[in-house]
Amino acid sequence: MTTEATTGPLADATRDARELLARCDELAAISSSTTGIERVYLSPQHAEAHARAAEWMAEAGMAVRQDAAGNLVGRLEGGRPGLPALLLGSHLDTVPAAGRYDGILGVLSAIAVVRRLAPRAATLPFAVEVVAFGDEEGTRFGTTLLGSAAVAGAWRDEWWDLTDRDGVTLRAAFERFGLDPARIGEANRDGEVFAYLETHIEQGPRLEDLGLPLGVVTGIAAARRMSLTFHGEARHCATPYDRRHDALLGAAEAVVAIESAARSLGAMATVGRIEVAPGAVNVIPGTATLSLDLRAETDESRDAALDAILKRLAEICAELGLTLERHDTHRAPAVLCDARLQEAIAEAVGSLAPEGAAGPIPRLFSVAGHDAMAVAGIAPVGMTFVRCEGGISHHADEAVTLEDVVAAVDALERTVEVLACAQASSSPRSS
Amino acid sequence: MTTEATTGPLADATRDARELLARCDELAAISSSTTGIERVYLSPQHAEAHARAAEWMAEAGMAVRQDAAGNLVGRLEGGRPGLPALLLGSHLDTVPAAGRYDGILGVLSAIAVVRRLAPRAATLPFAVEVVAFGDEEGTRFGTTLLGSAAVAGAWRDEWWDLTDRDGVTLRAAFERFGLDPARIGEANRDGEVFAYLETHIEQGPRLEDLGLPLGVVTGIAAARRMSLTFHGEARHCATPYDRRHDALLGAAEAVVAIESAARSLGAMATVGRIEVAPGAVNVIPGTATLSLDLRAETDESRDAALDAILKRLAEICAELGLTLERHDTHRAPAVLCDARLQEAIAEAVGSLAPEGAAGPIPRLFSVAGHDAMAVAGIAPVGMTFVRCEGGISHHADEAVTLEDVVAAVDALERTVEVLACAQASSSPRSS
Repeated sequence: MTTEATTGPLADATRDARELLARCDELAAISSSTTGIERVYLSPQHAEAHARAAEWMAEAGMAVRQDAAGNLVGRLEGGRPGLPALLLGSHLDTVPAAGRYDGILGVLSAIAVVRRLAPRAATLPFAVEVVAFGDEEGTRFGTTLLGSAAVAGAWRDEWWDLTDRDGVTLRAAFERFGLDPARIGEANRDGEVFAYLETHIEQGPRLEDLGLPLGVVTGIAAARRMSLTFHGEARHCATPYDRRHDALLGAAEAVVAIESAARSLGAMATVGRIEVAPGAVNVIPGTATLSLDLRAETDESRDAALDAILKRLAEICAELGLTLERHDTHRAPAVLCDARLQEAIAEAVGSLAPEGAAGPIPRLFSVAGHDAMAVAGIAPVGMTFVRCEGGISHHADEAVTLEDVVAAVDALERTVEVLACAQASSSPRSS
Repeated sequence: MTTEATTGPLADATRDARELLARCDELAAISSSTTGIERVYLSPQHAEAHARAAEWMAEAGMAVRQDAAGNLVGRLEGGRPGLPALLLGSHLDTVPAAGRYDGILGVLSAIAVVRRLAPRAATLPFAVEVVAFGDEEGTRFGTTLLGSAAVAGAWRDEWWDLTDRDGVTLRAAFERFGLDPARIGEANRDGEVFAYLETHIEQGPRLEDLGLPLGVVTGIAAARRMSLTFHGEARHCATPYDRRHDALLGAAEAVVAIESAARSLGAMATVGRIEVAPGAVNVIPGTATLSLDLRAETDESRDAALDAILKRLAEICAELGLTLERHDTHRAPAVLCDARLQEAIAEAVGSLAPEGAAGPIPRLFSVAGHDAMAVAGIAPVGMTFVRCEGGISHHADEAVTLEDVVAAVDALERTVEVLACAQASSSPRSS
């Protein structure tokens, strides 16, 4: 018989996953760049992507609204109106030249799960909300997690003056997007959230190495970001070496030293940007500015790596007659995923494993930051990682398989069911 | 008596130099940047600066025209119309964040000298022309000496497709400036030029170290320019070190290796530009492009330095799993200044030295490129260097003294006189 392939739960799950991947493709076409995917906070592309996602949320049975920070929120009421919400989500913004799954897969999986839950919403001991955060990557304003920080009530007034590359302030961008900066506090969901679950591609090669589709995330790395500006002297290229104060030479030695110091101390350092001025082919750069993204398993190991790096940079500056200016832009402590949610995810993932494929469920630490970091300020958070090809992310080559997407959606649905059962038995519903 | 201070040749020379410095300040205010001087080829600022210089040329007695490449040319006829021209000149374009004397001093000295010569123009055995070249620095299109190459009949058709940072082609820039690309050949002065003299700030500290205002240039360094693009893999910063192919790390190691290799081989290397893509704080750069400007005393020593550099870059790429793409943008052989012109300049400079201050006239080699390199293709060239403070150029701190400007203008006038005497005696004028 072939009916099992075209009807029944297995066929439904495959159809859902196919649709989800098609939606990823659809969102990938919404880009400010013609040569790759780029969709940044409060841009026309942000509005367009959220408009599409809003249709899908509504079609899945949710009441949809945009919050005061430009996040998109869809809500499925539970057994009675007004219950605390189980948030499922991730983000729809991207880095430049992005892939099509980072963040997006989490939002679309959540919508797919809510569509399945909608017919039995009355049985749920919590509301289920899907949140598509407007800014996680920090591409536009250099500070990440703006969307989820607003939801966590952690918005900072100094952010209003952040500017994008065109000099547009965050405040002005809010206004142009039709948002009222004075109402940012209304995005705060503190006290209304039961828990937060996020599905995300792994952005690393460990699941692929293990040959497994899904893993339970145990926590998220401590991170710091800063810009480092080397000040030297812009001079004509005819200047003899012993009179040069070449800011780019200092920055170049710094890039090499940063990699070496971080690597030897078990931290992950990335220099993703570098800019020099005046930037002429025949002028020794007078200033060179680079970005530093530093991550480590704990706050202490992160800060120890930074100390080692800064010591080396001071030595480089002394040798070359440069000065160093440091500007911290981001600092996030390590975040642990909630133990009870980790168990619920592990139970859900385990229940999907084919018979005989016992083995332990992989537990992974996330080097990358996620919206869950911000939401952890107001609710327990849990995350599931989905295998991605070659561990590649933030790149056009980002890829997931249909089978893994089937598993990811099924696992998220099961996790919600596990939590619903536990919640229903621990707090009997009032009628 | 105080009359000597306010009248007579000394007072005139000081007044000329003061006016020249005031004109440098006036041109410095014509800038596309609000934070420094920037005046690039075929820009509105180019047009404005040339319009001012045209007034000064006319006031000095010259017939003024713009040539087919956007160079400004003023002509003072000699003993009879149509004699071959002694060209005096330099350029009025600048690098970004430029100083106010590089190039400009040479053009304005030439105008000051022609104003002095005009009353006795009928005695000259050649016409004297002042040329303000429109592009020497190559800031806009990445290729230097566009203006003087046109005058030397060395324009290349492939240049029409060069683009600036906004994607504007050189061809389109010509048309927007009101020039007809089809007429570029009309700028060619081959066969009409008797000799070329250029006065320029030294852009190095040797005259200052010697305590002398002027030096005779013996030649101009061999140069090559290229862009070097490192291709790696843009990946999320969570990517483990052993899976990274970090293009910026390769470029950074290259910057360090270039300095080290060039220095040890007696060449001068400068990396003035670097750009990475995608350029996000949390993405490992997938490509990094840097500019290399390489100079040496001879073509052979320049090419030997390049070979050593490329060998090191290949090793770096092999270590990091990168590929290197090289694009040559400029190549100029070493240029020798004409021996007869060197002697004429030395005689002129020597005649200005205060009594008792004998000592040899300094002979200097130019690491920096100059319009004289291009003009050397059609005529003998001679150059005079003027002491500049700290050897600083291509920087807002570029500075010359009033006394040195007096000396520079006097020396150029005397050099013209020395050449006029020599020419008159070797080829008697026809009546």
